Amino acid sequence: MNAPLTAGELPRGFSFAAMHCGLKKTKLDLGLLLSEVPASAAAVFTSNQVAAAPVVLCRAHMQKSRQKIRGIIVNSGNANCCSGPEGYAASVATAERLAQALGRVDPSQLLVCSTGVIGAPLQVDKILVSVPELVRSRKGDVGAFEQFARSIMTTDTVPKWATERIRIGGKQVRIVGCAKGSGMIHPNMATMFGFIATDAAIPAPVLSRVLKAAVGPTFNSITVDGDTSTNDTVALLANGEAGARSITGGANYEKFFEALHAVCKSLALAIVADGEGAQRVIEIEVRGAPSDRAADQVARTIANSPLVKTAVAGADPNWGRILAAAGRSGVKFNFERADIWLAGIEVCRGGREYAFDEIVTHEKMLEKFVPIVVDLHSGEGKARMWTCDFTKEYIHINASYRT
Amino acid sequence: MNAPLTAGELPRGFSFAAMHCGLKKTKLDLGLLLSEVPASAAAVFTSNQVAAAPVVLCRAHMQKSRQKIRGIIVNSGNANCCSGPEGYAASVATAERLAQALGRVDPSQLLVCSTGVIGAPLQVDKILVSVPELVRSRKGDVGAFEQFARSIMTTDTVPKWATERIRIGGKQVRIVGCAKGSGMIHPNMATMFGFIATDAAIPAPVLSRVLKAAVGPTFNSITVDGDTSTNDTVALLANGEAGARSITGGANYEKFFEALHAVCKSLALAIVADGEGAQRVIEIEVRGAPSDRAADQVARTIANSPLVKTAVAGADPNWGRILAAAGRSGVKFNFERADIWLAGIEVCRGGREYAFDEIVTHEKMLEKFVPIVVDLHSGEGKARMWTCDFTKEYIHINASYRT
Repeated sequence: MNAPLTAGELPRGFSFAAMHCGLKKTKLDLGLLLSEVPASAAAVFTSNQVAAAPVVLCRAHMQKSRQKIRGIIVNSGNANCCSGPEGYAASVATAERLAQALGRVDPSQLLVCSTGVIGAPLQVDKILVSVPELVRSRKGDVGAFEQFARSIMTTDTVPKWATERIRIGGKQVRIVGCAKGSGMIHPNMATMFGFIATDAAIPAPVLSRVLKAAVGPTFNSITVDGDTSTNDTVALLANGEAGARSITGGANYEKFFEALHAVCKSLALAIVADGEGAQRVIEIEVRGAPSDRAADQVARTIANSPLVKTAVAGADPNWGRILAAAGRSGVKFNFERADIWLAGIEVCRGGREYAFDEIVTHEKMLEKFVPIVVDLHSGEGKARMWTCDFTKEYIHINASYRT
Repeated sequence: MNAPLTAGELPRGFSFAAMHCGLKKTKLDLGLLLSEVPASAAAVFTSNQVAAAPVVLCRAHMQKSRQKIRGIIVNSGNANCCSGPEGYAASVATAERLAQALGRVDPSQLLVCSTGVIGAPLQVDKILVSVPELVRSRKGDVGAFEQFARSIMTTDTVPKWATERIRIGGKQVRIVGCAKGSGMIHPNMATMFGFIATDAAIPAPVLSRVLKAAVGPTFNSITVDGDTSTNDTVALLANGEAGARSITGGANYEKFFEALHAVCKSLALAIVADGEGAQRVIEIEVRGAPSDRAADQVARTIANSPLVKTAVAGADPNWGRILAAAGRSGVKFNFERADIWLAGIEVCRGGREYAFDEIVTHEKMLEKFVPIVVDLHSGEGKARMWTCDFTKEYIHINASYRT
């Protein structure tokens, strides 16, 4: 998934930096993604009402700057959540210090993101003192981008990035994204982040629309444990430095959407594959539901069922758990019409066991990617979700005492 | 919880039987609870749309008999679910054979319950051939009741029973109940059962009302893994053999409700304590929610959060996970007013960490019973739920290949 990047894949006019400021013991814990010129920006944030201070600040900055953003500063090691007025002040101070170091930038043109332990005071001085060096050390090369992708990691075992290139009116346009996320909230860390940069030119309202369209079937269609973090953020900056014509709709919009969707999907699947303790990725496709919304509800219930996820951990073709999860999803359907395929093998037809080879199915389920298809034969609705299996290692990671 | 029973605790006019008919390898797998005279009956069944054949039959029998029931026959080892028309025919045949063996009983006066693997054909012949012996061997003594309580077990590690005695108009009335349930659905087994017998006299409509009232805050307020089984059944038979006056309302109704509630609560907590892999019971009390319904929604979201349950497994006072789960519950509240107590110690006040002794709290969380209190200070609504912690052993039990 993480092929080495080449210089030509990075969008023009962006630079990156990463350093260790002391929030973590030794690893990179402060990162910067910067556009050399003001960029159109779009962002989506956590739906959790318990939203961290930096999320509150970012929402305000997106409004105040009218979606014109220069950069994103990210710390890992502390989520700055449930941290009271001091927490909000810390995010404000970070934006102000960064604006000062950059010069001729309004603080509202900067986004501030935090990930890490909830409820502990953020030692913001460690960030503030490091900002000038962070700004000075920024570079537009592949190495700097990879370091940035590492600096946002928490329980992630690998950095995650993805790129796409398309042509808009004869000019090449590039998209690069990186993400972090493993468990939705971890004892010492938290959150899913996706940061995406492109040198396409796209007006902010169009950018918001295309980001929302791309996030729905990707970042919003994955689950590790059903827990929504307090800090989730996906941000997309488009600085127009490729020199291609502005994308406002039509075929160019579709082309850009496809490429952005591919980047988001690749990052989303990388998060699931790196899920805490995960051995394999599970794809859940629901068809024949009364509506797309109903299909989504069924798919989410199956994806969050501990019994389905533990069965896949054991490579056990236990289709009864899948049907039982669908049955409690709240969606009306006649289960005596339902068909289920597990790892490509039909295991249930018309709500009953369909003669299948248990050993062959078990062996297919030992692979890294396990597709589950459920056809309810109760309409035209369909949806797709991804999750990971639920292993002893997940418990081990999450039951360990924080200190 | 399971104090040894004495003869005086069993309601009059009931008998019990249990045997091994061959659905399991060696353990008891067929049980009978019988009233010697027709009893008023009330029952609640799974809300899962994927309902097993015996559940469908029981619903029909409750209607057809106008809630006059003689007995309940239960098999463990096979849930008879997703088993097609043959499965339904198997439940019908079981009721008919039992009616025949008893004589002068209509099959509609009998309930049939099954628990075990989903989707595998039920070898009903093993049941049918055993029914006459089962009927002959029935006894009204404590030993027979305890054997019955054992015959309905699947992954349960202990049988579960509870009793209460009250006086109605000078006459003693007895309630005895037994339950099974460990995971909601297990690879080889399934389901939560509660079977309750009383020698009180109560008309069927009143019985339905009191059972519903008692089940809400007990059996319907526990969760092991959020998965609702296809076979869940709670049934209550009242045969009037105590000779006390009929309970129709007023103070006697309240007295009976209290006793029934105590039996149901004791059984429900026994199920949670015996949850697959559980080390400890977690009580979640939510106060100050906008409504009781909202409080229930918050409590359920916390109770089903894998991150909260794994934190308790590690005795980690990670209150941020509790608040984050409340935040994604869909209930509106201002988290900056929320207070949280963990194992009796205040750990969060006004949505921020409240200085507490981590080591002391950790040690308190190592106890068998861990209360969590969340006060949202956003209204008068309150609710209580019980669950268990989430351990590696849960994964071990549920990830094992079925064969």
